[in-house]
Amino acid sequence: MSEFDFIDELKTLATHPAARGLMDDAAVLPFGRHKLVLTHDMMVEGVHFLPDADPADVAWKLVAVNLSDLAAKGAKPLGLLLGYGKSRDDDWDAKFISGIKQAITHFGVPLLGGDTVSMGDGCKHAFGLTAFGEAKGHIVPARSAAVPGHAIYVTGNIGDAWAGLQIAIGAVKAPDFETCAALLKAHNRPVPLLEDGRALSSLVSTMMDISDGLLIDASRIAAASDVMLEIDLDKVPLSSAYRSAFGDDAEARMNAATGGDDYQLLLTASPETVLPIPLTRIGRCRTGAGVTVMRAGEPANLPESLGFVHA
Amino acid sequence: MSEFDFIDELKTLATHPAARGLMDDAAVLPFGRHKLVLTHDMMVEGVHFLPDADPADVAWKLVAVNLSDLAAKGAKPLGLLLGYGKSRDDDWDAKFISGIKQAITHFGVPLLGGDTVSMGDGCKHAFGLTAFGEAKGHIVPARSAAVPGHAIYVTGNIGDAWAGLQIAIGAVKAPDFETCAALLKAHNRPVPLLEDGRALSSLVSTMMDISDGLLIDASRIAAASDVMLEIDLDKVPLSSAYRSAFGDDAEARMNAATGGDDYQLLLTASPETVLPIPLTRIGRCRTGAGVTVMRAGEPANLPESLGFVHA
Repeated sequence: MSEFDFIDELKTLATHPAARGLMDDAAVLPFGRHKLVLTHDMMVEGVHFLPDADPADVAWKLVAVNLSDLAAKGAKPLGLLLGYGKSRDDDWDAKFISGIKQAITHFGVPLLGGDTVSMGDGCKHAFGLTAFGEAKGHIVPARSAAVPGHAIYVTGNIGDAWAGLQIAIGAVKAPDFETCAALLKAHNRPVPLLEDGRALSSLVSTMMDISDGLLIDASRIAAASDVMLEIDLDKVPLSSAYRSAFGDDAEARMNAATGGDDYQLLLTASPETVLPIPLTRIGRCRTGAGVTVMRAGEPANLPESLGFVHA
Repeated sequence: MSEFDFIDELKTLATHPAARGLMDDAAVLPFGRHKLVLTHDMMVEGVHFLPDADPADVAWKLVAVNLSDLAAKGAKPLGLLLGYGKSRDDDWDAKFISGIKQAITHFGVPLLGGDTVSMGDGCKHAFGLTAFGEAKGHIVPARSAAVPGHAIYVTGNIGDAWAGLQIAIGAVKAPDFETCAALLKAHNRPVPLLEDGRALSSLVSTMMDISDGLLIDASRIAAASDVMLEIDLDKVPLSSAYRSAFGDDAEARMNAATGGDDYQLLLTASPETVLPIPLTRIGRCRTGAGVTVMRAGEPANLPESLGFVHA
């Protein structure tokens, strides 16, 4: 039973509408006059971070990726609960706590509770974080309301975190210090787009954060909305740091679009809708299924993997 | 750095009032006209359950112990988020899911989300659950409002889960099948006292669930309220099953009072308050500190450990 088979089993249990079929970034539950938005993401050494990663970066990322799920639903974070599997490495734990402190201070979200357990010897570092927040207004964007004709947008640039990972594992050398620092920072210290998410949430037809890769996450919108997402590879926005390290040919662009860990927002909206923040329009929704990547007006061959698939 | 040192470090970060200093069963946050109550408890193989435990029992217990935290705050559960560290043992995973299904059906609480990760080889089973709920009314009982003169009460019987654990590990043999079944059930399938908690929450001065042991949990109320809790050992309610397996002498009673995993409610209230459900009055709050156990009118020697201390 793979992780996906297991999740399929769980889906048969998660029949409450607030669960959104376990297909969305977060659970969305009416609570009083507002909506409560809740998410829980885990991180495991060797799967979600490198064994030699700075524990403060790992802690920051744990906070950021959970807040990013709230950002994608336009929710204002209210608090965090940390589930920490303690190792016997005191120095690691102390650095991890310093990273939690940096993140909750930076994002202004209180740590409200959780649990700490000893994992014993020989176990990998593993932890979970619950983030919850409040979405005002009637509509909390899902993945299931894209329609043919809607435009596809992303915030920011795509691929920097993947590029930073390549530098971190020594697969590539950055051409200069500034490029190296910028790409490593994108990998180690993602920033959830909380304000952008709130500004967009009532105007979009779908919205999600890009965690596993632009193309694989686009395919999830396609599946949930029963449309095809056609993405123009040349429109995928690349940072100058990315270009200086990897160029911007088709391979570089495909790597950016499948790399993951961007924590940018991917959204669809009517092309007539005026959106309140700078975005890059990267394609359009059509009738059909899945993701098509266009290059110079022709469908490009898709790579075997559209993004990061957890084993 | 022990688990407690680590938690002390976390406490310096959890300064928001809703965190209750990480000293309570749950975080309590005003939300609209009501209170949002959230808890996250983890379970790790070998620490919180035996390696040969039935995975369905483990899953049930994970749900039950988290709902018990909500019960102690008088909150009505609204939903659960599961963080599951997947092993490579498909049969184990399938049984675990069946236990989740049994529990959420039995307690009527929806599974709304979470995350599943692969833990890789050689790792213990480990998971966390977030439970959240809604407490109506102005007061959500804490641990910090007991005053000298208040009476101490418990729901149900104490010690059955500890007795069941002794049977499960083969440390003792039950005298008959019914006794064995009753005590094992108390260990394997605890039931959170959600209705009792709601009935009591507006009438008590403190309330918590007994998870680590009656005496150690009483000492936490004593510390948070700055009072001494004086407990009459002979008043600690024992089930007939417990008595038939362990008797009711001072040692048997002390084992019951320090065994843990009861998930009964421990509460204090003014002795004049009429409480709406059957309870056993087991002592009184006095000026002072810590826990005193009385036996035949004299303070009894306390055991080295007042309950289950996580390593």
